[in-house]
Amino acid sequence: MSTTISPLAPKTYPDLPAIPGARFATAAAGIRYAGRTDVLLAVFDPGTVVAGAFTRSRCPSAPVDWCRANLPHGTARALVVNSGNANAFTGRKGRESTALTAKLAAGVVGCAEEEVFLASTGVIGEPLDATKFGNVLADCAHAATETAWIDAARAIMTTDTFPKVATRTATIGGVAVTINGFAKGAGMIAPDMATMLAFVVTDAPLSASALQGLLSRGVQGSFNAVTVDSDTSTSDTLLAFATGAAAKRGAPLIETAGDRRLSGFRAALNKLLVDLAQQVARDGEGARKFITVKVEGAVSAASAKRVALSIANSPLVKTAAAGEDANWGRVVMAVGKAGEPADRDRLSISFGGIRVAHEGERDPTYDEEAVSAYMRNDEIVIGVDLGLGRGAATVWTCDLTKEYVIINGDYRS
Amino acid sequence: MSTTISPLAPKTYPDLPAIPGARFATAAAGIRYAGRTDVLLAVFDPGTVVAGAFTRSRCPSAPVDWCRANLPHGTARALVVNSGNANAFTGRKGRESTALTAKLAAGVVGCAEEEVFLASTGVIGEPLDATKFGNVLADCAHAATETAWIDAARAIMTTDTFPKVATRTATIGGVAVTINGFAKGAGMIAPDMATMLAFVVTDAPLSASALQGLLSRGVQGSFNAVTVDSDTSTSDTLLAFATGAAAKRGAPLIETAGDRRLSGFRAALNKLLVDLAQQVARDGEGARKFITVKVEGAVSAASAKRVALSIANSPLVKTAAAGEDANWGRVVMAVGKAGEPADRDRLSISFGGIRVAHEGERDPTYDEEAVSAYMRNDEIVIGVDLGLGRGAATVWTCDLTKEYVIINGDYRS
Repeated sequence: MSTTISPLAPKTYPDLPAIPGARFATAAAGIRYAGRTDVLLAVFDPGTVVAGAFTRSRCPSAPVDWCRANLPHGTARALVVNSGNANAFTGRKGRESTALTAKLAAGVVGCAEEEVFLASTGVIGEPLDATKFGNVLADCAHAATETAWIDAARAIMTTDTFPKVATRTATIGGVAVTINGFAKGAGMIAPDMATMLAFVVTDAPLSASALQGLLSRGVQGSFNAVTVDSDTSTSDTLLAFATGAAAKRGAPLIETAGDRRLSGFRAALNKLLVDLAQQVARDGEGARKFITVKVEGAVSAASAKRVALSIANSPLVKTAAAGEDANWGRVVMAVGKAGEPADRDRLSISFGGIRVAHEGERDPTYDEEAVSAYMRNDEIVIGVDLGLGRGAATVWTCDLTKEYVIINGDYRS
Repeated sequence: MSTTISPLAPKTYPDLPAIPGARFATAAAGIRYAGRTDVLLAVFDPGTVVAGAFTRSRCPSAPVDWCRANLPHGTARALVVNSGNANAFTGRKGRESTALTAKLAAGVVGCAEEEVFLASTGVIGEPLDATKFGNVLADCAHAATETAWIDAARAIMTTDTFPKVATRTATIGGVAVTINGFAKGAGMIAPDMATMLAFVVTDAPLSASALQGLLSRGVQGSFNAVTVDSDTSTSDTLLAFATGAAAKRGAPLIETAGDRRLSGFRAALNKLLVDLAQQVARDGEGARKFITVKVEGAVSAASAKRVALSIANSPLVKTAAAGEDANWGRVVMAVGKAGEPADRDRLSISFGGIRVAHEGERDPTYDEEAVSAYMRNDEIVIGVDLGLGRGAATVWTCDLTKEYVIINGDYRS
């Protein structure tokens, strides 16, 4: 969609290594966009387990309904993702479209329909013509390779300005395993779930329940800690696939998420999820600044997170950041409106570690010039100490620029 | 602040009649702005009662603290309002400032300090030098007239592009009474309370508790049903004053808000509050469209209001309106994220009465051209029928334009 890459994009993309048991191919099915790929087929070897986390929207898309219905089986052989059409609020036609897509994919991959997982992103409310997949899925199944990660990330982009990929390694039982992930999302981004689509693949031998346990915990501090515009999509989907291929190299099968042998893997997975989630905020529509909001001193971690999100979602805080204005009065406002315990006379606020407000008033040592210089950076850290307890939380967002308004005033028309 | 008047401003201002027992004067104290008035003194005759509603921010301003502390006395002789500085997050200096202002006003009016009510609007976090009031309040007390309503409304403006005044009449016990009001507010506007400052004056003979009862109920469907940017101010204040002067013309003193003789007055007061609240949305920073969101078919009125506010606060719905795009997919999204009971397959959505979505998908009879033509209007009505129950609510907002971002990126610097 966009031709200008976000200035907050990573300078380089990592090379994602092959993960045995997972292969990818993309195609241009002409769903909405011309001259680009818009369909991704991932094919997984038998034995691959799957876990997922989805939007809490009360009006979820047809593919979200499909994935939720099939996740309890715990196994996956194929993933079909399209961009350009979200297949959301499409009623009976939407359900027919997911059923047909799964049938087509199951046919070319040679698996059961309930082993096919689906995700769609794009315009809401337009019927998705799944027959278009019929023209490309067979070719994709033949062409799929273990190395087409960046192509996969590109095929699922909508208003994204750069593909989002990440990779980490860990050991389980002394055996090296890999975790790769890719994501898309730039607008309609708010917690529960905070990205539209993200996919993680590992060769670790995990049971579906262990994978689900790791994913459900990892999402809280990553995708559920990022926001662009406080708008929660109908389509948010995070799926993780574990092919188990590392078992051939001696990695033990792990059955439960709490297994101590997973400590390194858990840390690596969480870092990968945070990496992808931060990339989403870095590609926030119109974003020019990447903002980290760190709240401490709250009565609990949950309270700290609500205060942090109140700050990160405030249009006035976000426009002040866009204007390079260390407007801590708006941070006070956002703390106050969060509805969480806060005491004006104990509150401290800092930008980039420079304390600007302390104990209910402007810090007397506050150097406006130093803060103003700091605000010209691409990356801004807003720190808030509520001075009440030990609860802490960090969330990530971007600034609110006139480009966000222009992008979203013109997107559908 | 702004030189361009909102295109949504009322075409004419009503002439507000005198209310015996209430007099107003304004002055330029040089608090922040040059070349304009920034202080309002209102003087009330002995016997005037007062009621109030305030921000639910956990970090309220010093004047809000002052008003809350003195409201239980129930009587008012003076009101001092300034623009340019909110006296919020100003710590001990803020409390000293309110105390000095009340002392100065009590001196020139000849009343007790607890009969002085205060409100401040403007920048947060800067100390307010109350000695500046000392230069102007005595002159104001001498110059105060019963007819300076529009001057009063102008003196309290910040980023407002037009003064907001309203008037209504009613009868109590067969005797005509008048209600006048004025308000300011254009940004940092969200429910609980939804305006920064609003003041209502009537000559009706009411007890303080009756006035409070009427005000507390009236605010729910008016100021608490309007939003510009979901950001709740530290300073939101609505004060109502009843001079009781109509008693001289035979109006009976009413002691309780539920008294049947108040039915006409209650309706008139509620209309006046809605009028002022709508004017706030019409002057939303950068607003080009006034949006009414009507939700019906919810499981309760409270549920309907939360869904309506979710729609009205959605940056994506508001930018779509700015782009004149009947993007009902984003309305679906906002319904879905509200967290209230909703069933995609029963949901209907309309723009200006033209149904675009019905029972979980696009309405087959939907004429995109007719809706597109409708979206070019200055005033847009978004209708949502959840199809679940009888709960209904209406809220008002404005679109989100790039001018909002520009105004708020530049406000303080």
